[in-house]
Amino acid sequence: MPQFAPNSWEARADDNVMYGFTDLPSLHARGPVVLTHGTGINVHDVHGRSYLDANSGLWNMVAGFDHKGLAEAAKAQYDRFPGYHAFFGRLSDKTVELSEKLVEVSPFESGKVFFTNSGSEANDTMVKMLWFINTVMGRPEKRKIITRFNAYHGVTAVSASMTAKPYNQWFGLPLADFVHVECPHYWREGQPGESEAAFVARLAASLESRILAEGPETIAGFFAEPVMGAGGVIVPPMAYFPAVQAVLRKYDIPLISDEVICGFGRTGTVWGCESFGFQPDAIISSKNLTAGYFPMGAVILGPKLAAELMEASEKIEEFVHGFTASGNPVGCAVALKAIDVILNEGLIDNVRALAPQFRARMDALLEMPNIGEARGIGLMGALEAVKDKDTKTPFGPEVSVSERIANRCTDNGLICRPLGQAIVLCPPFIITPSEMDHMFDMLEKSLREVFAEVA
Amino acid sequence: MPQFAPNSWEARADDNVMYGFTDLPSLHARGPVVLTHGTGINVHDVHGRSYLDANSGLWNMVAGFDHKGLAEAAKAQYDRFPGYHAFFGRLSDKTVELSEKLVEVSPFESGKVFFTNSGSEANDTMVKMLWFINTVMGRPEKRKIITRFNAYHGVTAVSASMTAKPYNQWFGLPLADFVHVECPHYWREGQPGESEAAFVARLAASLESRILAEGPETIAGFFAEPVMGAGGVIVPPMAYFPAVQAVLRKYDIPLISDEVICGFGRTGTVWGCESFGFQPDAIISSKNLTAGYFPMGAVILGPKLAAELMEASEKIEEFVHGFTASGNPVGCAVALKAIDVILNEGLIDNVRALAPQFRARMDALLEMPNIGEARGIGLMGALEAVKDKDTKTPFGPEVSVSERIANRCTDNGLICRPLGQAIVLCPPFIITPSEMDHMFDMLEKSLREVFAEVA
Repeated sequence: MPQFAPNSWEARADDNVMYGFTDLPSLHARGPVVLTHGTGINVHDVHGRSYLDANSGLWNMVAGFDHKGLAEAAKAQYDRFPGYHAFFGRLSDKTVELSEKLVEVSPFESGKVFFTNSGSEANDTMVKMLWFINTVMGRPEKRKIITRFNAYHGVTAVSASMTAKPYNQWFGLPLADFVHVECPHYWREGQPGESEAAFVARLAASLESRILAEGPETIAGFFAEPVMGAGGVIVPPMAYFPAVQAVLRKYDIPLISDEVICGFGRTGTVWGCESFGFQPDAIISSKNLTAGYFPMGAVILGPKLAAELMEASEKIEEFVHGFTASGNPVGCAVALKAIDVILNEGLIDNVRALAPQFRARMDALLEMPNIGEARGIGLMGALEAVKDKDTKTPFGPEVSVSERIANRCTDNGLICRPLGQAIVLCPPFIITPSEMDHMFDMLEKSLREVFAEVA
Repeated sequence: MPQFAPNSWEARADDNVMYGFTDLPSLHARGPVVLTHGTGINVHDVHGRSYLDANSGLWNMVAGFDHKGLAEAAKAQYDRFPGYHAFFGRLSDKTVELSEKLVEVSPFESGKVFFTNSGSEANDTMVKMLWFINTVMGRPEKRKIITRFNAYHGVTAVSASMTAKPYNQWFGLPLADFVHVECPHYWREGQPGESEAAFVARLAASLESRILAEGPETIAGFFAEPVMGAGGVIVPPMAYFPAVQAVLRKYDIPLISDEVICGFGRTGTVWGCESFGFQPDAIISSKNLTAGYFPMGAVILGPKLAAELMEASEKIEEFVHGFTASGNPVGCAVALKAIDVILNEGLIDNVRALAPQFRARMDALLEMPNIGEARGIGLMGALEAVKDKDTKTPFGPEVSVSERIANRCTDNGLICRPLGQAIVLCPPFIITPSEMDHMFDMLEKSLREVFAEVA
């Protein structure tokens, strides 16, 4: 464990910060990394070290760390109207503008927008909206929420109950009424000899059985990320969502697309649901919504859910829910600019243009004996480390293979993210072809070094 | 219901916004109010109408709506480092600085800080921290959370389960394991002939009975606002918290002070717990933390809970929780400035200086036959409307007395908040004596007009 001088940044952090989502053995061995600023897709620490952030912060800093237009949009609004809420029918003009813009760029012909401060709050809010509609309309038993194993929907107690990861057992989660079904990861979960089509048919049949076993009248909604992000970039078979949607429609269960990671361009389309051929009943947005320049989430309700929520609200005179900073005018001004930057200033075009290079460099790493799968779409990808490629056998937990790779990458100037035994890459949308090559060169070097030690 | 032109601000809002915490009959009768900017303690709408905001936005815009220093702090950080997370042991220098500052100004000698984006998320996080400590340390049954009727702790499903308001029934809340005990509102809840001391003794005894009935080994924590805010500014008897704290200590139950509203000066001290004579085990902060200039919440753990959470986290190698924008560098820069502005640039001094004028003008309104109670501390107060003062009989629900008063106030240029049958006032800390008089003059006029109609 490194010793830090009493007034060093590292000691001050260790003394006062409760670290979240931080591998404590790595932290104790290496110390915290305290960052001062960023340039383009790179971030810089208090000791002058620089890192190419292939993680875009946390998927979200898609316009890089010093985008002038985004900073100017925030600064102009700070001079104009730095804060207000959206309670009591009072709200800022920017809140109105952004609501209108989100409906316009959504897959819906009409709809209604509710703002939160994060994706966690947006998922939590969507669950509360479904519970509210069903309780007020006289069907309080219609309450269960279905998500998939390995999904990530956030960290409030309810959104963590939707996040079907084993670690949530340590909070005594999931809460009652949260149901988890199969993860659509064909490479890992497909049975021996099972075709992709048969895999999809099995998962759809299993979902239907589960709905029938629980009682369709008890299911309030099904939430899914088009591509699971923090689950390790799980790209579903193309036939998966149409098959799931058919089952859900049969039992009148809303399909909510959690677009916190996919939304606004990550997969090469505005929404992930476009890339995977389904029409959701509502969209959960965050992250890219402000390109990481302001904390914000949004629930975008399609016409059917919007009408149902309004009907229930009219019945008791109020939708009794809201966050103090819901629709903050600075956040809304930033989001309006971020949407414009992504859709109209070339960012989504660059995702589409560079996706083939990203894919080719990922595929090339598949030649390594310890990379079992290279998966991805657009500018999100994951490389799955395996001890034995033929049997898909993972490394033992004592190896901490993905933490080891990620730490070696950091030593080599590259930030990427260990997830399970995979390494995830999701660079900013402004990345150039030569930066892309540099990113993969650093990754390849790190992989070779680590595999030479542990394989 | 007013008709708005198709492209008017009002029509665009109605078409695209899902209004939260908005009385829909009032909205339909009056239309939304779309705001463009603020000056000092006033806000201005798209039609050039101005309002003195006696609600400080939502308690939080304590430095007013165009504070140059706060805007400059935000703008400078946007030019420096506009966004980053605090996962994986990586975080911004501003996040470290603010963590250190919060421990320094806290009631604790040492502690650890965890950032969220709102008070709701901070309360939800604190509950998860308690569940995590107890589950990892082998006492998963120690899970129940006690709050008081009429408390407000937020709107995530868990923080709404702590918010013991009747409207949460419409979501099917509270969830299991949330227990509600008596509200310390002596004027309303005191029994005939019961002294304040007897009232406090009764509530403390009732809390102890409830703890014993539930089983002390099942109680994870007790959360309380020093003064209930959205409950209608419920100022507890001075003996209340010491009596409650003694009971909690007897059964080793942490006391969490929800300082989202009271924290940073609202009651005239830095923390509400200072005003009411108790030492919490952790503090929940938000709102004034950034003076409303950025969405942020924080959990400040005292030394005991910090040590317990670190021990549990070391045991499973990670505290598996965090929000994407936790510790955002712009938010931290804004909070550092807000704390400085409140504590060192005269804002908290002004709260103390103007509290007597605030109190005197409140008390003067008690002379009205339809004001039953005038309660408050510092710069937060509530006037309780009653149909019959002697019997404390409220108006019938069909009168919507507080909405009617608040709407009349708005017509007269004053924003204040209806809560139950009370009108709540919590002006920005920068208010001047003459603005204070103007605020009360508008309120008094509105009260006289409404009471002449309904009394």
